Amino acid sequence: MMTNLMRGTELARDIVARASEKAADYTLRTGRKPCLATVIVGDDPASVTYVRMKQNRCHKAGLESRHVALPHETTTEELVAKIRELSDDPAVHGILLQHPVPHHVDERAAFEAIVPHKDVDGVTMHSFAGMSFGHNEFVSCTPGGIMRLLDAYDVDVAGKHAVVIGRSPILGKPAAMLLLARDATVTICHSKTVGLADIVRTADVVVAAVGKPRFVQGDWIKPGAVVIDAGYNEGNVGDVDFDAVKDALITPVPGGVGPTTIAVLLEQTVDAAWRELDA
Amino acid sequence: MMTNLMRGTELARDIVARASEKAADYTLRTGRKPCLATVIVGDDPASVTYVRMKQNRCHKAGLESRHVALPHETTTEELVAKIRELSDDPAVHGILLQHPVPHHVDERAAFEAIVPHKDVDGVTMHSFAGMSFGHNEFVSCTPGGIMRLLDAYDVDVAGKHAVVIGRSPILGKPAAMLLLARDATVTICHSKTVGLADIVRTADVVVAAVGKPRFVQGDWIKPGAVVIDAGYNEGNVGDVDFDAVKDALITPVPGGVGPTTIAVLLEQTVDAAWRELDA
Repeated sequence: MMTNLMRGTELARDIVARASEKAADYTLRTGRKPCLATVIVGDDPASVTYVRMKQNRCHKAGLESRHVALPHETTTEELVAKIRELSDDPAVHGILLQHPVPHHVDERAAFEAIVPHKDVDGVTMHSFAGMSFGHNEFVSCTPGGIMRLLDAYDVDVAGKHAVVIGRSPILGKPAAMLLLARDATVTICHSKTVGLADIVRTADVVVAAVGKPRFVQGDWIKPGAVVIDAGYNEGNVGDVDFDAVKDALITPVPGGVGPTTIAVLLEQTVDAAWRELDA
Repeated sequence: MMTNLMRGTELARDIVARASEKAADYTLRTGRKPCLATVIVGDDPASVTYVRMKQNRCHKAGLESRHVALPHETTTEELVAKIRELSDDPAVHGILLQHPVPHHVDERAAFEAIVPHKDVDGVTMHSFAGMSFGHNEFVSCTPGGIMRLLDAYDVDVAGKHAVVIGRSPILGKPAAMLLLARDATVTICHSKTVGLADIVRTADVVVAAVGKPRFVQGDWIKPGAVVIDAGYNEGNVGDVDFDAVKDALITPVPGGVGPTTIAVLLEQTVDAAWRELDA
């Protein structure tokens, strides 16, 4: 009985290093840097911190970042117009709208203003369907990071039972679809699920994407299972009761899924720049 | 122990009757009929029969149908151009591309040439994401028919375990997403699933969308389960071994899911016409 860690920090470092090389090649060839536009509405402190972190990572990796900060009162129409402007701007290769946006804004309308070939955060309906149908397009960054972790630790999910807890449009649902595309048998659980513990006990792979600290109990985990904790709650705590999990391959929090998310964002931005050049 | 039937024929008749009334209202108001364009490539006999059936149903319900028959040699570019033309044609309210198309044609590219507001067969990436995110847009017709059957027989799937066997982009996947939007816990199984029988045995609701005659065995079905057979194989046989199922609420084949599929197609075409008017 032992627990092995899937270390996202090291993996993210590798992904970013490769993206950085590809960014340098791009700059050498074009005289420009791959550019990520970040958009934030309002001044939620966590969102401000996240966006700043993403910008810093861009700069360190040799990408350009352009930041658009809009006031809390911004209307859906104004936000959509701004994002359309970025969609049309040839100097911008990727667009990230930091969520959540204020309640009065129609987030879906704003996401859909991102043209698919700049949707490096994988939030559009087009990208979701692309993930669901196994197309080679942009993926939502956290599910994308999860798949990279599975690859890095040689976890083949084909024929395995994967249980995804959570069904948000940018985490639970796309994670389920990406696992399905790899031939896992996938069960999607959520707040209305009856008998969750027993369902999780049948899982070879568990993806916790609930947003509740230590929600998944240690005795829900089948010995030898792979446990992906995509939660990040106050106090640096994940969605899984980490200390109670024995005999599993598990992502720590922090240092598991989190770092891979930004790494995939940077990688997809560089890819977007290259794809545009090749198109 | 008894088996009760979910009769699609009666339900379809009701749906078509209401669609027909709405079509007549539309005609009264506009002097035009809601119009479905059907597109077929090549001369596969089953496809020809299906399309003819859809056209006949249109006419009987007071809809117009416009048929585009293209030769087997049609290229992807030619097909896309034709569908774009229909997308731009204000006299056409819904577009149906009969599948399968010949192997040399990029079916996805052809589907994506349908503008979302005319996608009455629910095949585009936009419609798939809409179903997945619980938007009120067009649904794939067979999964849509399945949901109507569940409604008609007062089956509330919330908190229930639904097992979908099959993961095609227009049947298994959208059916799973529509069930999830109704708060079912959903497991998606497929050809690579290990231990399928035991998974199906845990299901409160089974959707068989495999395309293999009598594939789902009677002893896989939990007593009292709801069984939706979306298969239609040679010899009028479904994907479920119907005669072996005891104590279930089940759709017969024929006369179960099949008729509801066309009914939803007609209903969505009429809705498309009205929505365009209201837009």
